[in-house]
Amino acid sequence: MTQPAPTKTSPILQVLHGERPDRTPVWFMRQAGRILPEYRELKEKMSFLELIRDPAIGADVTLMPMRRFEELDAAILFTDLLVPLEAMGVPLDYNPGPVLGWTFEGKDDLKRFEELDVEERLSVSLKTTELVRAELPPEKSLLGFVGAPFTLAAYMCEGKGSKTWARLRGMAYRDPGLFEAFLTRMTDAALAFGLALARHGCEAVQVFDSWAGVAEPSMFRDQVGPHLNRLVDGLQEADIPVIYYVNGALQHLDTMYETGADCLGVDWRVSMDDLCDALPKEMPIQGNLDPTVLFGSPERIAIETRKVLDAASDRPHIFNLGHGLEPTTPVEGVEVALRTLRKWENEQTKKPKKKGGKGS
Amino acid sequence: MTQPAPTKTSPILQVLHGERPDRTPVWFMRQAGRILPEYRELKEKMSFLELIRDPAIGADVTLMPMRRFEELDAAILFTDLLVPLEAMGVPLDYNPGPVLGWTFEGKDDLKRFEELDVEERLSVSLKTTELVRAELPPEKSLLGFVGAPFTLAAYMCEGKGSKTWARLRGMAYRDPGLFEAFLTRMTDAALAFGLALARHGCEAVQVFDSWAGVAEPSMFRDQVGPHLNRLVDGLQEADIPVIYYVNGALQHLDTMYETGADCLGVDWRVSMDDLCDALPKEMPIQGNLDPTVLFGSPERIAIETRKVLDAASDRPHIFNLGHGLEPTTPVEGVEVALRTLRKWENEQTKKPKKKGGKGS
Repeated sequence: MTQPAPTKTSPILQVLHGERPDRTPVWFMRQAGRILPEYRELKEKMSFLELIRDPAIGADVTLMPMRRFEELDAAILFTDLLVPLEAMGVPLDYNPGPVLGWTFEGKDDLKRFEELDVEERLSVSLKTTELVRAELPPEKSLLGFVGAPFTLAAYMCEGKGSKTWARLRGMAYRDPGLFEAFLTRMTDAALAFGLALARHGCEAVQVFDSWAGVAEPSMFRDQVGPHLNRLVDGLQEADIPVIYYVNGALQHLDTMYETGADCLGVDWRVSMDDLCDALPKEMPIQGNLDPTVLFGSPERIAIETRKVLDAASDRPHIFNLGHGLEPTTPVEGVEVALRTLRKWENEQTKKPKKKGGKGS
Repeated sequence: MTQPAPTKTSPILQVLHGERPDRTPVWFMRQAGRILPEYRELKEKMSFLELIRDPAIGADVTLMPMRRFEELDAAILFTDLLVPLEAMGVPLDYNPGPVLGWTFEGKDDLKRFEELDVEERLSVSLKTTELVRAELPPEKSLLGFVGAPFTLAAYMCEGKGSKTWARLRGMAYRDPGLFEAFLTRMTDAALAFGLALARHGCEAVQVFDSWAGVAEPSMFRDQVGPHLNRLVDGLQEADIPVIYYVNGALQHLDTMYETGADCLGVDWRVSMDDLCDALPKEMPIQGNLDPTVLFGSPERIAIETRKVLDAASDRPHIFNLGHGLEPTTPVEGVEVALRTLRKWENEQTKKPKKKGGKGS
């Protein structure tokens, strides 16, 4: 693990330490993926599983958006949320969405999970991390991402995608003890994976709760919140800054804040204005442009991008989408948003400094 | 149209007129469906399309839950949100979710929609309405339900289910003029269908926005809100009370309230406490038990049911789920929730009356 030391003052890390860097850092969820012609070309030759099982290819895909969009401040390790489940003995395939080899039905299935030897079983992700960090300029950050306990458990119950994830939600009401034991196991896996990613070169971890938005808020607070707290604490004890992202954050804001994560990642369903009203001014926020804005006219993209930037201008902010890039997003849309960000930054720098405003 | 006149003082209609009846009325979204053994038996013999294309069968299915659960205050016309699209010349099939024969791509497709002669093209739904109303006791209400413009348009763009409904959302940013013309057309259809349902015997209409929860709130307010207002106004001008339901209501509460609907139907993602804080005390609310609570232990079902009832106890309230019954919901779960409601009602009646409390 002799990685070139990343700059501790990279804009993203500054935000994650509650500071306000000279400019607003930016990355886009799913920036390494189907919107890039170079990715689509690769994808014609290989399956998704082949891509994430070869460290050299995974590193190349991770770096693709960094080469194309020089404005991006972070590379995001190209892998899948569910690889820790595979590493615990759950067969994993994609068709095209994830399909698991067995589903979690009850207490006996707790024993079916194999011991998670992260260094051995997740060596591909860890090797990919090292390759990316070695190639990435020191001022750029490398983020790992880890499935949150609720989201991992939701997949484990359904075995594939679902609109309502009713099996896991029903379990919370039917058998809270089982739910607790199950989420404990998922949390152990997420924590072990996050710690290993950081050991191998990720400077921060985004805990990704893709499906928490289906959970009733008080159930989520009482029955899921403690697991999130343990996960965030465990990462922070190892000095790893944590971004906690929820798709459907509005109803869970209090629970998210209570985790103590260093930054909250928020989807597009809440206006940045409302979000800033709801959270203390020193709390770093990541987000939250509606990803479908990037299908818009250049004028509209600029307007909507500025709305987000203006609303978050007096707090630590990482500009991002509210969810992953849609696969058919035009590359030009991404370029317009990035240009708008830089133009906005220049305007901010020229503005007279005022209390509470940018640059104060 | 010589239907037996429904009781104007049925509990549901009282709530829809802003009154507080002696007891809290109740119905469950998707109450006529796969949770009932009698429905599943029928479904083994016929496809969904066959069920909704025969008025006698549609009426029978509509009445099934009324026969099984005597506590229910309303029958909900058994049909599908998308039948008005079929009536405009869009081929419709189910596999098992809806599949449309063509998708809306651009301006030229506006001309592909055929003139909607509701009485002729939707005669099955209207005949079903008459049959149900003729059999339903006068103290029970019959609700029609109509797809909201955004939800109809979302299906029209994708041609089938979607997780993100990105085509319609992208259109809002790319071509607001087209989006406007398209939603106008969808609103015309929804309004014509709602008015016809009421002419044939529905006493109120639930406008159902299954997918509005994916929309960014300011886009929804500015680009969809005016269509909703026209739809609600048009129904109310014909003296039809309107329940406006959104799955993902929390971020759209202001827009929902601004429609002037007589009652707001809300999903389970917002606690009834927060909802009651956010809306004026005289505003009728319908909802919002998490449907997966019904998988819980009887004790937990009772606790969660009481939470919703207690929180809404000082306003006009129709008890319901926050979304449709999950297909695998145990019938016993529904029974426990209904028993809990009646028990709670009895306790309320015995309580000393107090200002602002139940019975004041």
